[in-house]
Amino acid sequence: MSAAIGASEAAIGGRVMLGELDRFCRAALAAVGADAPTVDAAARAMLHGTRHGVDSHGVRLLPHYVTVLNEGRVNRRPTLAVSRENGATASLDADHAHGALAAYVGMERATEIAAANGIGAVSIRNSSHFGPAGAFALAAAEKGMIGVVLCNSDSFVRLHDGAARFHGTNPIACAVPFAGERPWLLDMATSAVPYNRVQLYRSLGRELPEAVASDGAGRDTTDAEAVEMLAPVGAAFGFKGAGLAGMVEIFSAILSGMAPGFDILPMGGPDLATPRGLGAFVMAVRPDAFVGREVFEAGMRRYVEGLRASPPRPGSRVMAPGDREWAEAARREATGAPVDPETMKEFQELAKRYGLASPAIEIGGT
Amino acid sequence: MSAAIGASEAAIGGRVMLGELDRFCRAALAAVGADAPTVDAAARAMLHGTRHGVDSHGVRLLPHYVTVLNEGRVNRRPTLAVSRENGATASLDADHAHGALAAYVGMERATEIAAANGIGAVSIRNSSHFGPAGAFALAAAEKGMIGVVLCNSDSFVRLHDGAARFHGTNPIACAVPFAGERPWLLDMATSAVPYNRVQLYRSLGRELPEAVASDGAGRDTTDAEAVEMLAPVGAAFGFKGAGLAGMVEIFSAILSGMAPGFDILPMGGPDLATPRGLGAFVMAVRPDAFVGREVFEAGMRRYVEGLRASPPRPGSRVMAPGDREWAEAARREATGAPVDPETMKEFQELAKRYGLASPAIEIGGT
Repeated sequence: MSAAIGASEAAIGGRVMLGELDRFCRAALAAVGADAPTVDAAARAMLHGTRHGVDSHGVRLLPHYVTVLNEGRVNRRPTLAVSRENGATASLDADHAHGALAAYVGMERATEIAAANGIGAVSIRNSSHFGPAGAFALAAAEKGMIGVVLCNSDSFVRLHDGAARFHGTNPIACAVPFAGERPWLLDMATSAVPYNRVQLYRSLGRELPEAVASDGAGRDTTDAEAVEMLAPVGAAFGFKGAGLAGMVEIFSAILSGMAPGFDILPMGGPDLATPRGLGAFVMAVRPDAFVGREVFEAGMRRYVEGLRASPPRPGSRVMAPGDREWAEAARREATGAPVDPETMKEFQELAKRYGLASPAIEIGGT
Repeated sequence: MSAAIGASEAAIGGRVMLGELDRFCRAALAAVGADAPTVDAAARAMLHGTRHGVDSHGVRLLPHYVTVLNEGRVNRRPTLAVSRENGATASLDADHAHGALAAYVGMERATEIAAANGIGAVSIRNSSHFGPAGAFALAAAEKGMIGVVLCNSDSFVRLHDGAARFHGTNPIACAVPFAGERPWLLDMATSAVPYNRVQLYRSLGRELPEAVASDGAGRDTTDAEAVEMLAPVGAAFGFKGAGLAGMVEIFSAILSGMAPGFDILPMGGPDLATPRGLGAFVMAVRPDAFVGREVFEAGMRRYVEGLRASPPRPGSRVMAPGDREWAEAARREATGAPVDPETMKEFQELAKRYGLASPAIEIGGT
């Protein structure tokens, strides 16, 4: 007993097996009163992030999700409803569900539509933070379809010539299935770097790369401590990153009747009780609606093999989008995922509060 | 007579009215035996580029198009055929048509499908160079729909960690209509810069920006003379640009059963007789399939006005995608478009060869 309290007071990080993390996420979400579909979707999305090395969108989000389910921002028992079905499109009112539930349900509907129509697009309204966009694109790929996911978020990225936060990190995800391999998988923010990179460099005392972040006046800075906003991807050609962020904003927020990122409540609070009203856009495309399955498979094979055979720059290695993630997933499935000390401490607090067993650390230290 | 020959030998550039450029493009395309739909589509696309200041994809392409129509790469009298209709998708075999004809016909079909189904996607095969992607996205916006256009091209852009040409400049275009204004219009290559920027800097003897182009070994270079390939957009985060280029490649080439960019004949020859077999992907989305038209209009208004009101960096001005192009179009509709001396010389040669009146120069010098 005293040992357990001791561990809670001075938590250390370590590697934890994925199954153990999944168990703990589900237990904590259920403990806060989330219904079974919410528990399942939120855990599945977080494990996608953690499994593939996208730790910013992995299990470290659990304490935040528990808080917003508790405080009321996110509906623990939502009733999701599809409306406005127009042949190959639908609108999904997520009833302020956890964003992962909204996105999985939306993509499920998109794949059903695409099965009959070749393509299916679903606009999602009244949603919330969904975690890793790639998780929902992958859900389409697991059914043999191309999945595309777009979502905006609260303002944290300046415009190309801007000096204030405007767009969110507005991700674009695309998953393309092909035979004999895990899918081609792109999951990218339209900002130059993710904010967690800034946080990491702060804690390490390292200088940021040039032209990825700005101070409060919009001036470029490499001082992680001074960062007040991110730059759009593209450096001197950041109008491209800002333009892509705008496309994401229009498809996810405007097309769903939700507010643009600069009008939504920040993810981090202080208000954790009011629903944020996020939008998202998910699309499934059936390759064999356009071309014979064998032709598509041969084309993907030729393309990806050509990519992997493209000569690298000295000291580098070319990889297809997803290659790094699949390799990391294999490692983590075998040896567990690193959980940083701060997240482990929060897990132990959750365990204590809800009477759960803390995640068992496989190997100490991270 | 001697004056005309003199002008041909020492052509000077100048501003030419858009109507006069349109007349000349149509006359030259008809003279080489292109059918009426080809003439119309190719002229319309080139004038889109020239009208909006995208001169790399404007009337300077006319001599190239005349050549490839003459040599046989592009079919002067194609029979375009739609097949594989699956509810909301279709495949268009363009019969080696001019790419602009293929793209306009494809987008026309996509908007017809979207009118009935909310969304419509058309995969185009056996196409050729289509010019400015934004022209075809705009064709959807002119019908009140969001248009998306993706197309690959021959290899000229290295991978993020690559040292060889791999992707083309693979553009992404998106046009979003809303009341009372010209559409929001994004038309961007997924390379850091367009190749014509390199050519321009060569002729000016100027240094390129950092990290936008590489020499034959894939090393970054700012020497325009040494450039053998472009970098993907994103600088230190060029895996994002390369990933987007890959998404474009998959949607345009692989989904249409065409070859990836590294397997297609280069645009510039020497073989100008063999069809290149380009693919493209066009999609139309009807906003009122997802949300009430008034809600969508109000959302776009709020978003774009918020963007234009976002504080600029010192000495800069924030603009929505398309703002610069619409302003340039207004200027050029009033005072004509600049035609550089080299292009004017080629026009005069075409005029002589086919017995056409050369474009009348409104104001000499460019």
